[in-house]
Amino acid sequence: MTMQKARIGIVTVSDRASRGEYKDLSGPAIVEWLASALSTPWESVTRLVPDEQPEIERALKELCDVSACCLVVTTGGTGPALRDVTPEATLAIADKILPGFGEQMRAVSLKYVPTAILSRQVGVVRGTSLVINLPGQPKAIKETLDGIFAAVPYCIDLIGGPYLETRDDVVKSFRPKSALKKSSI
Amino acid sequence: MTMQKARIGIVTVSDRASRGEYKDLSGPAIVEWLASALSTPWESVTRLVPDEQPEIERALKELCDVSACCLVVTTGGTGPALRDVTPEATLAIADKILPGFGEQMRAVSLKYVPTAILSRQVGVVRGTSLVINLPGQPKAIKETLDGIFAAVPYCIDLIGGPYLETRDDVVKSFRPKSALKKSSI
Amino acid sequence: MTMQKARIGIVTVSDRASRGEYKDLSGPAIVEWLASALSTPWESVTRLVPDEQPEIERALKELCDVSACCLVVTTGGTGPALRDVTPEATLAIADKILPGFGEQMRAVSLKYVPTAILSRQVGVVRGTSLVINLPGQPKAIKETLDGIFAAVPYCIDLIGGPYLETRDDVVKSFRPKSALKKSSI
Repeated sequence: MTMQKARIGIVTVSDRASRGEYKDLSGPAIVEWLASALSTPWESVTRLVPDEQPEIERALKELCDVSACCLVVTTGGTGPALRDVTPEATLAIADKILPGFGEQMRAVSLKYVPTAILSRQVGVVRGTSLVINLPGQPKAIKETLDGIFAAVPYCIDLIGGPYLETRDDVVKSFRPKSALKKSSI
Repeated sequence: MTMQKARIGIVTVSDRASRGEYKDLSGPAIVEWLASALSTPWESVTRLVPDEQPEIERALKELCDVSACCLVVTTGGTGPALRDVTPEATLAIADKILPGFGEQMRAVSLKYVPTAILSRQVGVVRGTSLVINLPGQPKAIKETLDGIFAAVPYCIDLIGGPYLETRDDVVKSFRPKSALKKSSI
Repeated sequence: MTMQKARIGIVTVSDRASRGEYKDLSGPAIVEWLASALSTPWESVTRLVPDEQPEIERALKELCDVSACCLVVTTGGTGPALRDVTPEATLAIADKILPGFGEQMRAVSLKYVPTAILSRQVGVVRGTSLVINLPGQPKAIKETLDGIFAAVPYCIDLIGGPYLETRDDVVKSFRPKSALKKSSI
């Protein structure tokens, strides 16, 4: 059986990393988590942009519309500071907003730090792509993905993307019985 | 004592049910739940519409403005798929948004399935009507109503609607002492 | 060491209190809570306005832009009733919305009353000021501040305000280690 690889876009949003002042550790942390969680063949398409809304929007649109990523995740730029504009960029390119992602990501992070309520992360749909803002720190990225990814594969089904499967020992993704492919039952 | 019946609008949003391809089970599940929960005399006004934003908006406006329903509930069309536009229609006809309804409905459903975060349900006020999006499945409808209805009668008081009373064994509605009618203390 | 006092704006929104029909108890309850919680020198700037969106907006803008308050809290006007417009006024003057504040305030209040989901409280940033809507009742004000204030000092750091310190026995504010001032470690 030939299977086309699913594409996942990863956008690191950081003024300093984009100027080369430090190494991006967050993008690679996302790649590592996804590699451990997904059993479906996939490939990453990565971008590194400064905290500028037009550049973030451009990267997101390109990954959704040109690279045809079924999932695009961002890291960085979701706090309350002046330069934090990742949620604004994400909402600006959205067809549909999924408020449950932001709520659940904050609820998950709140188990670790009370400042989790300062995060403005959102999840949206653009065309057939799901776009999710993750936090900036590798530790928080892992906690967040552990807390929300169970809902991601079924969401991608619903918006017309590929059928993603996960390794149950990392994250047990959920689909209603009617949405399960026979091969995976 | 003569008491005018409270009116409750129920809008089933479904392409297939509206084409007659299957029977609407969700609208009747809502009627059944309300019949068990409300001790105040009431009557339902039901609508069945396809997943088309203008038709959903028209049904909601008519039930609020013409039929004078104090409560309007929808079922269906709240997911992330392209044809799911019930939340957009509801927000478009809203005077005020009540974000706590969506948050609480997702929190309640999250106890049952991790994909609850994909639901985009909202609660809004239009004039003197409360409008709430419920999920599409009868089982999830019951879970959601069990989880939020305690706050509905007091909300309807506050926006100028009739004084609804519930059967405590189904749902114990809450009002501050100052808002309780003498007959019900 | 000379230290300029931090300024905190407190806006009571109430038709009846602003007409002198009853005494504002909510503003003083906020002052009392802050006095118990903050160890940093601070002063309050108080306003009493009716439930009129333009007057609320004017008070908020003035406290942020002219009085240079690092934090502005409101009390009242966050329910679903027609005259409740404090969230609308707050969103209208916002540069950035922090959805986690509203979510967490409702989650905290929900431990006490099921009607907490009717509250439409928001938290926003305007320039270098954090603006938060609190409930109207003194008891609920205390519960809410107890539940969210741990995140407030770090938020004010991030938007360029003064370094606020709290009394740990009232509220243990949280900052990442990298954001702690040496004097406070």
